[in-house]
Amino acid sequence: MAAAQLTTDHLTERHRATLDQALEAIRTRAYWSPHPEHPKAYGEDGSLSAADGLAAHRAVLGGRFELEQPGTDGWVGGEVSPYGPELGVEYPHADPDVLLPAMRAGLGAWRDAGPETRALVCLEILARISGRTHEFAHAVMHTSGQAFMMAFQAGGPHAQDRGLEAVAYAYAEQVRVPGSADWSKPQGKRDPLALRKTFTPVGRGVALLIGCNTFPTWNGYPGLFASLATGNAVLVKPHPRAVLPLALTVRAAREVLTEAGFDPNLVALAAERPGEGIAKTLAVRPEIRIIDYTGSTAFGDWLEANARQAQVYTEKAGVNTVVIDSTDDYRGMLGNLAFSLSLYSGQMCTTPQNLLIPRDGVDTDAGPRSYDEVVADLATAVGKLLGDDDRANALLGALVNPDVRGRLEAAGGLGEVALASREVAHPDFPDAAVRTPVIVKLDGARKVWESGEDEVPFLSECFGPVSFAVAVDSTADALDLLRRTVREKGAMTVGAYTTSAETERAVEEVCLEESAQLSLNLTGGVYVNQTAAFSDFHGSGGNPAANAALCDGAFVANRFRMVEVRRQA
Amino acid sequence: MAAAQLTTDHLTERHRATLDQALEAIRTRAYWSPHPEHPKAYGEDGSLSAADGLAAHRAVLGGRFELEQPGTDGWVGGEVSPYGPELGVEYPHADPDVLLPAMRAGLGAWRDAGPETRALVCLEILARISGRTHEFAHAVMHTSGQAFMMAFQAGGPHAQDRGLEAVAYAYAEQVRVPGSADWSKPQGKRDPLALRKTFTPVGRGVALLIGCNTFPTWNGYPGLFASLATGNAVLVKPHPRAVLPLALTVRAAREVLTEAGFDPNLVALAAERPGEGIAKTLAVRPEIRIIDYTGSTAFGDWLEANARQAQVYTEKAGVNTVVIDSTDDYRGMLGNLAFSLSLYSGQMCTTPQNLLIPRDGVDTDAGPRSYDEVVADLATAVGKLLGDDDRANALLGALVNPDVRGRLEAAGGLGEVALASREVAHPDFPDAAVRTPVIVKLDGARKVWESGEDEVPFLSECFGPVSFAVAVDSTADALDLLRRTVREKGAMTVGAYTTSAETERAVEEVCLEESAQLSLNLTGGVYVNQTAAFSDFHGSGGNPAANAALCDGAFVANRFRMVEVRRQA
Repeated sequence: MAAAQLTTDHLTERHRATLDQALEAIRTRAYWSPHPEHPKAYGEDGSLSAADGLAAHRAVLGGRFELEQPGTDGWVGGEVSPYGPELGVEYPHADPDVLLPAMRAGLGAWRDAGPETRALVCLEILARISGRTHEFAHAVMHTSGQAFMMAFQAGGPHAQDRGLEAVAYAYAEQVRVPGSADWSKPQGKRDPLALRKTFTPVGRGVALLIGCNTFPTWNGYPGLFASLATGNAVLVKPHPRAVLPLALTVRAAREVLTEAGFDPNLVALAAERPGEGIAKTLAVRPEIRIIDYTGSTAFGDWLEANARQAQVYTEKAGVNTVVIDSTDDYRGMLGNLAFSLSLYSGQMCTTPQNLLIPRDGVDTDAGPRSYDEVVADLATAVGKLLGDDDRANALLGALVNPDVRGRLEAAGGLGEVALASREVAHPDFPDAAVRTPVIVKLDGARKVWESGEDEVPFLSECFGPVSFAVAVDSTADALDLLRRTVREKGAMTVGAYTTSAETERAVEEVCLEESAQLSLNLTGGVYVNQTAAFSDFHGSGGNPAANAALCDGAFVANRFRMVEVRRQA
Repeated sequence: MAAAQLTTDHLTERHRATLDQALEAIRTRAYWSPHPEHPKAYGEDGSLSAADGLAAHRAVLGGRFELEQPGTDGWVGGEVSPYGPELGVEYPHADPDVLLPAMRAGLGAWRDAGPETRALVCLEILARISGRTHEFAHAVMHTSGQAFMMAFQAGGPHAQDRGLEAVAYAYAEQVRVPGSADWSKPQGKRDPLALRKTFTPVGRGVALLIGCNTFPTWNGYPGLFASLATGNAVLVKPHPRAVLPLALTVRAAREVLTEAGFDPNLVALAAERPGEGIAKTLAVRPEIRIIDYTGSTAFGDWLEANARQAQVYTEKAGVNTVVIDSTDDYRGMLGNLAFSLSLYSGQMCTTPQNLLIPRDGVDTDAGPRSYDEVVADLATAVGKLLGDDDRANALLGALVNPDVRGRLEAAGGLGEVALASREVAHPDFPDAAVRTPVIVKLDGARKVWESGEDEVPFLSECFGPVSFAVAVDSTADALDLLRRTVREKGAMTVGAYTTSAETERAVEEVCLEESAQLSLNLTGGVYVNQTAAFSDFHGSGGNPAANAALCDGAFVANRFRMVEVRRQA
């Protein structure tokens, strides 16, 4: 291997301060990010400008995406933008019998590099990705259907933050034990027993990242960087509709690894033919020792049950609830909720689905409001928010796939429609399916309890721009329903609005007992469906929606093992 | 509930400094223990003297062991000391439908107590246990068959150390995130987005500890205290032959919990009728969210596959290897190995089983020694070590059960016996089965490779005082066999003797790649089968012998989840 262009000194100079800031941020949980959110912040210091990012994106379309991976036995593709155009990119298809052994070849040197160098290499990869954020924004937009600004922020700086957060956790976990220690045990009048011990964190082997359609980078980076930083190789298996953002990621990783003197095959791409379903095959390969997955509950459960040779981290479906008891900022609440329901057409795993509203209404600073009034006012707020097509397009993005559209169209049949969905024309992409959310009124929580009936619409995840305004007997009834929903169906987020200290305490208690992340009385510019890296936990890992949280010690601690060698001193 | 006798102030004064020392010890890995190893160190400051400990032990025998647990529906017992006498103790038998809900009742207050108070309560429990170390020594001796001094040390201070280590890890993990944080995100010219966040570690529910026969306290305390300190209740299900040490532990825990103002049912005992097999039933109860287990691979694998509602930590069987390449202290090596093979009749999960010795012999400071000579010299060393019956009894203890005796007796049929086992008479317990180890010469590692044959005796764990002196073609052949053994069968320990830097590096590489803990060239008073809390890892969690290590971040980090509540500031 050629002499490394990127020496440890270079890497330290470039990134050690950033790593230290990240370590401090995960300790204080205060706001911090090294990745600018504003598109105009890019274009200098070697990063791509808006125009250059778009040009880079266009240059990739319609061609082969070369990665020079071992075991490439063909070329596959077929991504179609939710905005209409075919991407036309072809990716290498890998023979796992060749690729997986090749990925193991560099593990020894990667282990020997140690936790700090691994962390710094990961930070360099993230810096390269950050420099191409404008290009990534287009790639995320045209695979997930997110509107450009969201694709830019969530797919760019926010995803990079989550990756960096995982690196910081991984580094901190590995250096909790020193590299070596002298141990001397007194023996009374005899000489002490003395040992020299060395401790080496060793990765488990090859990790498999199974990417998702909606947030290929944001949901993919934590697992990818946690595994890589802890000494593993990472095979990236993107969702077949969202390959490009992760292919760009793999390319950046391979470039940096090479420049730093490591084997580029420590990170590789596994693209697939339509319908090939390689995740299921790869997941049970003996080389695969770690799996990160975001997607359906069915496949997540399958992985947990069957990929027994691996540590499996899953984010699956959940049913997110907002309890509306009372508010001292009715207008703020309606505006906040309207935004939460609309953002990316409700296609976030954190979007509220069930709004639990007492049948007798709620107290607000604008006077008491009946259930019907609250629902009507929320419908009006959503309608106003999305009344202008430009703004609607900027918020909603496009429906990611026909299944979402199908659920949206079927939702009207589930109850009284308080707000109908409308089609929004996109000025640039006439084939984009842009739809405003539907709000459906439902009743009968009490009936659910009494009948023991399980299959009511609001007790399953209805992924997409569909919310249910569920009439409940009381706030106490709402909390019972919240508890049951989290316990049985899982939840990535819970929201609540109340002016009562007692109710606040009661909803907190439910969330503490059922391990759900709670946002209280959000009426401003923070939304229940958004979390910030270094401060907020995404999911709890303690309810059925996910078996891990992004990011905590448990997310990284079992991706490596500590091997001790002791010698007489 | 009555006012707590043990206030947080009391607990802080008594134990905070010890907790801080433990936190420092797990960071530096230097030698440290607050628990004296010498029996004479006890008897003052309220701790039981040798005589009082024996009296306390005798007072418990032949009676009912009251714990005042809810759901007690009968009394069960039947322990027989491996030294002969029946213990005659009866323990409460629990109806899990009553006991498990009762154990959940105190979880809210235990959660609200916070990580520091929980840690201090755990340290008070350990201090109570420490004060009764002499009583525990008899309980461990007469359930495990360990000789008194070993039962005293391994069952007393060393077990308490491992419990304290788990508490330190649990505390450290929970306070990595602050209890609250203010988060403020700049918004250019607009007001910053500001949130007040609280973070609460919440236990998963009820943990189940499934104890083992040979080290009821040492192997039990890490999981018990890790779960309790992270906010869980713990149901202790002892091995039916080793109930007493854990019943004493449960009693101490319930006393302290009560005095500190918590629900004593946070810790409870689940004893069983002979053949009842309640572990299998309890393990899949929905209330059980964590399981710690030490025992057979078959049941450990069953738990991992079936107790899917729980986090499962297992220590199972393994095949421990010592590679003998060369030594500059032949006499020291032989003495060290002889002790390792003899201690507790080889009934440690860490006892070496396979001694891999090149067919052409090894270089030593006493000149070259052929394979036959090395084996004969080792046999002589063991014979001398155990030649005196008093010393033999003090080292060997008794065989823990008839299965071990059966394996010992069958071992002679597997190959040429280099050292035959002999019966040792015990001066106080004529019915004790005390046996010296057998060493059997085997050959054919190469044949194993060539035939692909799997079922050779030395590739399965032969638990008990049986070792195999396996002739190999070369040290390289030994390393291949070591690698295969660790990868396929698992290993808690690996030992090696070599004067060659190259060979040392090669055996290290195997252990790093296969995740095995390695001891190199031990010739003095530290043995491959012993690990020290706060410094050594017991197991790696990275090979089939165990899915967790005692103790590291991964052992505690997933026993609780962090629940965040955020509010607009």
